[in-house]
Amino acid sequence: MNIFNLLAPKEKKFFPMFEKATSNIVETSKVLVEMVNTSSMEKRKELIKKIEELEHVGDQITHDVFDHLGRTFITPFDREDIHELASVIDDIIDFIHGASKRIDLYKVNELPSEVKILADLCLKGSIELDIAIKELKDLKSVEKINEACVRINSIENHADDIYNMYIAKLFEEEKDPIKIIKFKEIISALEVATDKCEDAANVVKSIIVKHA
Amino acid sequence: MNIFNLLAPKEKKFFPMFEKATSNIVETSKVLVEMVNTSSMEKRKELIKKIEELEHVGDQITHDVFDHLGRTFITPFDREDIHELASVIDDIIDFIHGASKRIDLYKVNELPSEVKILADLCLKGSIELDIAIKELKDLKSVEKINEACVRINSIENHADDIYNMYIAKLFEEEKDPIKIIKFKEIISALEVATDKCEDAANVVKSIIVKHA
Amino acid sequence: MNIFNLLAPKEKKFFPMFEKATSNIVETSKVLVEMVNTSSMEKRKELIKKIEELEHVGDQITHDVFDHLGRTFITPFDREDIHELASVIDDIIDFIHGASKRIDLYKVNELPSEVKILADLCLKGSIELDIAIKELKDLKSVEKINEACVRINSIENHADDIYNMYIAKLFEEEKDPIKIIKFKEIISALEVATDKCEDAANVVKSIIVKHA
Repeated sequence: MNIFNLLAPKEKKFFPMFEKATSNIVETSKVLVEMVNTSSMEKRKELIKKIEELEHVGDQITHDVFDHLGRTFITPFDREDIHELASVIDDIIDFIHGASKRIDLYKVNELPSEVKILADLCLKGSIELDIAIKELKDLKSVEKINEACVRINSIENHADDIYNMYIAKLFEEEKDPIKIIKFKEIISALEVATDKCEDAANVVKSIIVKHA
Repeated sequence: MNIFNLLAPKEKKFFPMFEKATSNIVETSKVLVEMVNTSSMEKRKELIKKIEELEHVGDQITHDVFDHLGRTFITPFDREDIHELASVIDDIIDFIHGASKRIDLYKVNELPSEVKILADLCLKGSIELDIAIKELKDLKSVEKINEACVRINSIENHADDIYNMYIAKLFEEEKDPIKIIKFKEIISALEVATDKCEDAANVVKSIIVKHA
Repeated sequence: MNIFNLLAPKEKKFFPMFEKATSNIVETSKVLVEMVNTSSMEKRKELIKKIEELEHVGDQITHDVFDHLGRTFITPFDREDIHELASVIDDIIDFIHGASKRIDLYKVNELPSEVKILADLCLKGSIELDIAIKELKDLKSVEKINEACVRINSIENHADDIYNMYIAKLFEEEKDPIKIIKFKEIISALEVATDKCEDAANVVKSIIVKHA
């Protein structure tokens, strides 16, 4: 426990910022799911642009957290945890954006079903993270936070299995090395996005361990 | 504002260190531009070696900043910002070095024009960063810093466009997957170098927001 | 020197945690060496699974360090250094695990001799890091720590040379781009693992500079 915590009321502005950040991730993941499932290339292009815009929104939120952290001496939990949590949430959206940008750049028309499954897992992970973050404010229900974190863990494990099976299949069945490069990079970005959800859940868990 | 800032005169040694770091990046970028434009393979080899040496110089500067940060209790601006700025400047040179090492290792003779454009953008970004850092010392002209940061942003956007168009073209026109692997990795490293310039500009902007 | 260091006895729990972390890395590297040298595919599968388990052990140790850091106001050396050291040690095992996972996923049967050399260098680097960390506790023999760090540096240089020569050879001799992708990724992960050993040695050196 930081002794300075005794000296002043805790700064509460971080919570609405984090809630904005996770809401933004949920929204981005929803657009991602729509984008990988549409059959219209025009619609897809539009949704990829929407993801790009949401990524800029996320950047601004992260910037606001860092800026506020720089100006605030007493924080509701450890400075390192606030910094880490904001960075990791920013990473989630960066990897979703990276995957969608690659789908665009590589001019991949047909997406494998694994891309759709991983997009779904990104959305599920984002929703659970949003739940955990919203509960963090008053630490009323540590149990609810823990449950969300457990679900994020199993979502990440599922994403890992999908990724591993897909890569093994890709190297066995796909004979065109250019397609291997393209699909491997797209699907890796989505898998890392779910990893980053788990990293965020780990920061949340370490915060409640210290404060519960 | 950190309350400790009231307790002691600010430590000024960080500024010359950062100036050394950005001068070193400008020099490295100049060698990079020369290297990607020379038609002599012997000259190229020599310049790649020079970049490697400048990267070691950069490592030493970064190490000095961290070392000094560890020994200094009162810093001119937030410790996190000093750490972040030094790390990100180190990243710029690492990616320039990474690109030049790949050109060497992959035995690529003919470089695409996009490599030359991106090398130019690395140099332009480094020069602007050097301007911003030099102005940071006395915060006399916040306007000049802001203008340099705006230019770094537009340099990064330009680099991004060049990269995206090149990757799309590469996948469409290049039929040799081995060449795709090689060029994609070289050009990615240069594009990330300009991203890192923007990251450094963002740290600078967040410093002036807190102190202006 | 942090002025708070004068106020309280130093917290000693971090040392056993770091010793556990480096012992775990030595063990993981031993399994790696065995795994890349076995000719039985069944045995290899088993050892890859063992590396995965040791990676989970490592995650738990890193988590314990961060958790303890969050609860401790007075640390035996700078908080940033503790955080950095634990992160970098975690990275070593992550890249060893990454390499072994790729060997499994990519269904590579025959491993090039360079993979075996790099696995050996990972083990050598881990053993030196373990020596340096064990000496850090009482700072009795700064010389021994420095010697171990020098050896880690030369191990990393050696790994770098092996990597560079192998990549150049791969692009020159291997005509199958799919094999290039596979081998390049496996060997890169091992090379980065030795880089991370060097990063850890750099943190150790910066700690002794401040305290010796």
